[in-house]
Amino acid sequence: MMNLTILGCYAATPRTFTNPTSQVLEIKNHLFLIDCGEGTQVQLRKSKIKFSRIKHIFISHLHGDHFYGLIGLISTFRLLNRTQELHIFGPVGIKEIILLQLKYADSWTNFSLVFHELVSKESELILDEENLTVTTIPLNHRIYTNGFLFREKLGQRRINIDEVGKHEIEICDYQNLKNGKDYLTGQNKIIPNQRLTFDPPNPKSYAYCSDTVFNPGITSQIKGVDVLYHEATFLDEHQKLAAPTKHSTAKQAAEIARQAKVGKLVLGHYSTRYGSIQPFLEEAQSIFEQTLLADDGKVFCFD
Amino acid sequence: MMNLTILGCYAATPRTFTNPTSQVLEIKNHLFLIDCGEGTQVQLRKSKIKFSRIKHIFISHLHGDHFYGLIGLISTFRLLNRTQELHIFGPVGIKEIILLQLKYADSWTNFSLVFHELVSKESELILDEENLTVTTIPLNHRIYTNGFLFREKLGQRRINIDEVGKHEIEICDYQNLKNGKDYLTGQNKIIPNQRLTFDPPNPKSYAYCSDTVFNPGITSQIKGVDVLYHEATFLDEHQKLAAPTKHSTAKQAAEIARQAKVGKLVLGHYSTRYGSIQPFLEEAQSIFEQTLLADDGKVFCFD
Repeated sequence: MMNLTILGCYAATPRTFTNPTSQVLEIKNHLFLIDCGEGTQVQLRKSKIKFSRIKHIFISHLHGDHFYGLIGLISTFRLLNRTQELHIFGPVGIKEIILLQLKYADSWTNFSLVFHELVSKESELILDEENLTVTTIPLNHRIYTNGFLFREKLGQRRINIDEVGKHEIEICDYQNLKNGKDYLTGQNKIIPNQRLTFDPPNPKSYAYCSDTVFNPGITSQIKGVDVLYHEATFLDEHQKLAAPTKHSTAKQAAEIARQAKVGKLVLGHYSTRYGSIQPFLEEAQSIFEQTLLADDGKVFCFD
Repeated sequence: MMNLTILGCYAATPRTFTNPTSQVLEIKNHLFLIDCGEGTQVQLRKSKIKFSRIKHIFISHLHGDHFYGLIGLISTFRLLNRTQELHIFGPVGIKEIILLQLKYADSWTNFSLVFHELVSKESELILDEENLTVTTIPLNHRIYTNGFLFREKLGQRRINIDEVGKHEIEICDYQNLKNGKDYLTGQNKIIPNQRLTFDPPNPKSYAYCSDTVFNPGITSQIKGVDVLYHEATFLDEHQKLAAPTKHSTAKQAAEIARQAKVGKLVLGHYSTRYGSIQPFLEEAQSIFEQTLLADDGKVFCFD
């Protein structure tokens, strides 16, 4: 199960009915907060996401529409008497900005704030958990920016209860089967593991790429991911604005999805100049059919 | 005309339906933004206040619920291509916090950001315009905090058209009359100014006091103001919490209003622990009848 909750997916400024970038990826029982524009904590409340389940926050870059809500969220964690560690991944500078504000407020957190400041221009492994990894996707934007690639690790094989039942295998042996070992019966007969188990579920993967100029250089790293979130600030009609501001069009996002042969593309980071976001879908689908539109409050379940 | 628009008046954290502190005082054709909690720019939009009319921002102290929305508002001014100066009054540190974030975003404003950093523990005149003054009201809170006293200057005398008409006084002499000069007729007869003019309108005054512990020491400075906004974080039943957190109860706010003989008291900065704010009104009115309740989005017109 992999769920994506869009808290905000519009560019630039928060407005009455649209929010700057923030989203929550639920994967392998983790809740990862990705970017944190102003108003994110209110959006979290609206989506009824428990604050205490967030232990890792990933910030792509230090433009305000991607992180001005972070200091407020940290302060609220403090007021809610949080005690568990909070890990923050983001560009160098993020620690200085947060700590400076806590200093002037004379409001130190009673939980550990663990900053993982990023400086590398090469992709790097930044989180290695038992059941998943997170690596950076270096992006090309006006300032130092990373996307993030979340990838489940291959899980254990699953017991085929019907087959296992035929051989009077005891429960204490199940773990060996899950690990891929063959089974040796009391009569010294080997039963191959593949007869007693099913393959583990396909590990899921999610790539978050915002903000970035059109950059086919990233396709090798995100090849075949189940879901790609790619920014689409502009429609093709404003393509001339995309390159100088180092943003992408819906068409360009779709082109990346097509070249990387991803499962699904989710578009977001729409410029607030457009009255409707529907044209983004139509433009992208002409190139990559499996396109979805992010919108504030929307939840995608990728089973 | 003096109008007060409450953008947010709740303590601590922004929530789905309540906002941290921010308000706009319209006085003598100025729009003064006082405090700027997270979400202020969205609240400004909801109240349909033109961003370009805000030229002065006053920040009481550097707790998040009073200024975390400032960096986002400044960034939005920038995106809206503002060119006119913006004056920011607030505790020392505010400049460092804002400039650090602009630096990492590589997003300098194309308008002048003029910081007026406050350090004095004595009241001081911080803005002296043609028709009004703003002075600080040193408050006693957990960190360095100022309230602000906005006071109209005495305006010009107003022409009594009926009386002036009787004496064939020319329009070019009106300004002298407005300035209080007597009139000398062609027959060298003195007509006293008081017969030809009315008194100027009473200068209005507004005192903003948030956040502060109960402190009768401020009453001499705010004596007789037309409107006092005083924080009331707690009800009397939680009075024990007020002193250690350096906040006030509704009763204490009313006691300040009573002692200072103000015209009207506006309560705000309610703790989010209460289901309803109505008890704040009842508690305060038992001591000071002319009490009003602030609430998000509310507009008070003090004619």
